Parts: sequence; C-alpha cells; structure tokens
Amino acid sequence: MTQIISGRDISTEIRAELREKVSVLKSDYGVTPGLATVLVGSDPASQMYVGMKNKAAQAMGIHSEQLTLETETSEEELLGAVEELNGNPEIHGILVQLPLPDHIDEARVIEAIDPSKDVDGFHPISVGRLATGSGDYFAPCTPAGVVEMLVRSGHDPAGKHVVVVGRSNIVGKPAAALLMRKAVGGNATVTIAHSRTKDLAAVTRTADILVVAMGRPEMITGDMVAEGSVVIDVGTNRVDDETREKGYRVCGDVLFDEVKVKAAAISPVPGGVGPMTITMLLANTVKSAGISVGSVV
Amino acid sequence: MTQIISGRDISTEIRAELREKVSVLKSDYGVTPGLATVLVGSDPASQMYVGMKNKAAQAMGIHSEQLTLETETSEEELLGAVEELNGNPEIHGILVQLPLPDHIDEARVIEAIDPSKDVDGFHPISVGRLATGSGDYFAPCTPAGVVEMLVRSGHDPAGKHVVVVGRSNIVGKPAAALLMRKAVGGNATVTIAHSRTKDLAAVTRTADILVVAMGRPEMITGDMVAEGSVVIDVGTNRVDDETREKGYRVCGDVLFDEVKVKAAAISPVPGGVGPMTITMLLANTVKSAGISVGSVV
Repeated sequence: MTQIISGRDISTEIRAELREKVSVLKSDYGVTPGLATVLVGSDPASQMYVGMKNKAAQAMGIHSEQLTLETETSEEELLGAVEELNGNPEIHGILVQLPLPDHIDEARVIEAIDPSKDVDGFHPISVGRLATGSGDYFAPCTPAGVVEMLVRSGHDPAGKHVVVVGRSNIVGKPAAALLMRKAVGGNATVTIAHSRTKDLAAVTRTADILVVAMGRPEMITGDMVAEGSVVIDVGTNRVDDETREKGYRVCGDVLFDEVKVKAAAISPVPGGVGPMTITMLLANTVKSAGISVGSVV
Repeated sequence: MTQIISGRDISTEIRAELREKVSVLKSDYGVTPGLATVLVGSDPASQMYVGMKNKAAQAMGIHSEQLTLETETSEEELLGAVEELNGNPEIHGILVQLPLPDHIDEARVIEAIDPSKDVDGFHPISVGRLATGSGDYFAPCTPAGVVEMLVRSGHDPAGKHVVVVGRSNIVGKPAAALLMRKAVGGNATVTIAHSRTKDLAAVTRTADILVVAMGRPEMITGDMVAEGSVVIDVGTNRVDDETREKGYRVCGDVLFDEVKVKAAAISPVPGGVGPMTITMLLANTVKSAGISVGSVV
C-alpha cells in the first residue's frame, strides 16, 4: 500500500500546535502574534491568496491586518507602508503579496522589510542566513512545508539522497538549502535538477526522496521514479478538462496514478503541499512573535 | 593524456586581464581600486595570508591598506574600524581576515561590512543575492576560482552533473550556488555530498565534474571517480612526511596519482585552486571599483 502524505492532515496537526503556542504567548508573555499582509492592485488570484492567509491567521488567534493599495500606488508609497509596518510593535510578520505591478521594483520592496519580520523568507538576509545556518531567520513557507511533510510522515531526509527538480527562488533553491542543513529535516545528500539537466529521468531515478517543483503538469511519469521512493509534488497546475464542470482540473507536476504504483509514499495535488504553505506562514509569524519576547515555545 | 588544470597558469592569465582593467579604471575613470585588509592578532598563518593578499593587490596596481589590530581589540573597536572603512571612498573592498579571536562575534563583524565592499562574499546579503541571482554581489573567492578554472580549461559545467563534496559556507555551499546559477559557469545539475552522505563513492562516481572540499587528506581514491571525469581538488592539507626536509608535505583531498589515471582532467595541489583564491579577491576588488564609477570594464 502506498502511503499518501496528506498535507491537509499534517497542516491540521501543526495548526493545532500553533493555536496552543499562540495561547501561551498571550497568557504567559502578553503578546498576540500579528501578521500584516500587503496587497497592491486587484488581481483576483492575489486577492484570494491574501484573503486565505488572513482568515487562517485569525482562526489561529493571530492578529491580522490587510493593507490594500491601489494598482497605481508608487514604489515610494509602498516602501513607506512597509517602513510603517516595520516600526509597528503589534506586527511580527509582514507579507507583501507577489507579484507586484510592473512599475514597482520587487527586489527593492522585499529588501525594505525588516528581516526580523520577513515571514515569507525572501529577503536576501533571510536567504543568506538560511544558506549559512547563522542567526535567526525564517525559511520560505513552501519548502519549509515540504520538509515538515517529510519529517512528520516518517521520512526524515537525513542521509537520504533527495533530488529536487526545479531551481526557483521560491521553492527549489530554498528546499535544497533546508535539506542540506545540519539540522532536523536536513543532512540529506541533495541534487538540484532543472530545465538544463540532461536526461532528467536518469537523475530522478536515483532519488530516495523526489521533490518536484517545475510547474509542468504531470511531467514526472512512472518510469522516472525509483521503486520504493518518496515523492513530494509541489506543482499546482490547471489543465483544460472538458469533462469537468469548471472546464479544467488541478494537477501536480507528477502523474499521480502512474507514480503512485512505484512510490512507497506520495503527496497528492490538491491536498498535498498546498495547505502547508499557509500553515508555515502562520508558524513563522508565531515564531517571530516568540523571538520578540524571548519565548522558547 | 590527462589534462592538468593549473590554477597557477589560469591565475596568471586572469591577473594580466585585471592589470589591464586597473589601468583603464585609472586612466578613463580616475579611480584606483582600493583593498583594505583587517588583521586582528598575530596568528602566523593569518599574517602570512594577509601579507600575500596585499602584495598581490599592489602588484596589480591596486591600492592596498593593511590595518593590524591587537588580539585584545574589543568587538566595538573592530566594528568602528569596519565602519570607517565602509565610509572611506578610496576603499572598494574590505577583507577581515578570519578566524577572529574568540571574544569577537564573527557574524556580527561580517554583517557590519557594507555589502557593496564585501569582496570576500560572506555577508548574508551577498550569500542571499548569490543564491537568488538578484542585485550586485561578490561571490566567495575560492568557489568563484573553481568555476573560473572549469570554464577557462574548457569544462563549462552547463548541462553537466557536478558533485560537490563538502557543505562548508566558504566553499561547498557557495560552489553549489554558483554552479546551478542561470549564468556563465552555471546551469549544471548539482549534487552536494558531505559527511552524512551514505556510500559517498557511489555518489562521486556519478559526477561528470567532481569538486572536493572536505579537508580530509587524499580521501578521494581512484575507485571513487568515473572514467573521463574532471576533478577539482580544493583541499590543502599538511600531512607528516619524514622524508621531506620540513617534516611534512602538502596534499589535497584527492589521491592525485590514482585519480589522475582515470580522470580526463585534474587540478593539482599545490598549484591548483590555491592561487585562484587571491586572484578572485583581486577580481572582486576591481569589479567593486568598476561598479562604484559605473564602468563596465
């Protein structure tokens, strides 16, 4: 029987732990973790994501604020808003929803966030500290979720060969950094494969654990994975499907039915990595609030 | 015939190019690249390294200053000295020689260096920008030297499988980051192996290009490398040898005579990566001076 690694279930488990931590922070330290989300413009997908994040935060007892700015907002105005949140003692985590409108320099905005509130983990200081393992930092939410899924489903990556397919700054590269750390969830031998990799199948077949984050629908087929391996599918793709009411279906980067037959364990899409991303954002916000009061919960 | 990749020769070639760039920066932009080295204490090895760096800079027409502080120097005094160098317009590169005395927080000192002068590439912002490929940054000198050696000896890593043995912040991890970048010298499929890797030989044998930075004398033996692979040895170890006048010999992490038989190309120790480290420090300093005047040389 192939083990199905449910991000939904693991997420529920982590959120219960977080709720507990939030109540300890409130009762013992007098602090309520605070998350600020910043949305520029009215992209429906971004609106939905930000809404989900705030709702999830509130359900956890986290104080959450959403700042919505017009598409025409200038870079300076946005930087001013970030600056204000940096200085707001009620806010422990700042999330600027990406992508930003074209006239705004995304890198400049991300670098304006106080690293001690960078719960998205995209500030170069956060990225650098994750790479070197020094100081306090927040790991990007999606790859942090992948690691949690592995550890909590009984597949500690330590000493295993993990192949990460994809080298994005949001998933692939930080996932590799987390998996090679000298820390729980790390100590793996890590290979990063990507669009320029020759004979991808030959590489993916060497994986004890395969993490796929390419954004290509169902590209990983049964012949590309080793018998008995563990497969985490980070992809979320919409593909046309006239048999569905909506005209599309959501699938991962892994051809689930084929790969499931060979894998010892596999995460589904939806219900896999997806729910973990928001959960890790909440975890980072709670961690940040904890650090701010010197708590160790 | 196995190709010997001479870091000494490639270094000479790069230094000639740098001398040319320095003279263009002086004549066309009116700027002399400036390097400041900071040495705390009187460790003989550190004294020697810093001396070599200054001498090499001067031979290139680079202005160089050495600041030597007593072992007892307080962290605040050192931070003050770094602050002064940050503000000195004649200095484009600041190198604080490591290790620092125990009473000084190394991470704090490195973070005090202006990232635009961080020619050692160890500031978390530099590490983060290297990882994400955004903004200006300086790559750490030793791994940058490894990449230069590969490219200039005709072994472009693009599309190749590179195995990096060692996950230090100084060599292994930044080497992996450079080799997977979407840039010249990058685009490789990269595996990072280390002390926790199971069956290291099985991993190293899969490498088209093997980069070894473990600090273990001659640990890579002939049976651990693939026929026709390219091997770069970053190790520099002293091992006892009574047949030598000094009582020791210097060797790499690779058992040269055995591996040479199987490899298509190999870098020796000494005369391999060693000379490249200082050369890349000079290259970073010249690059920094160029950026400061908007030059593209």
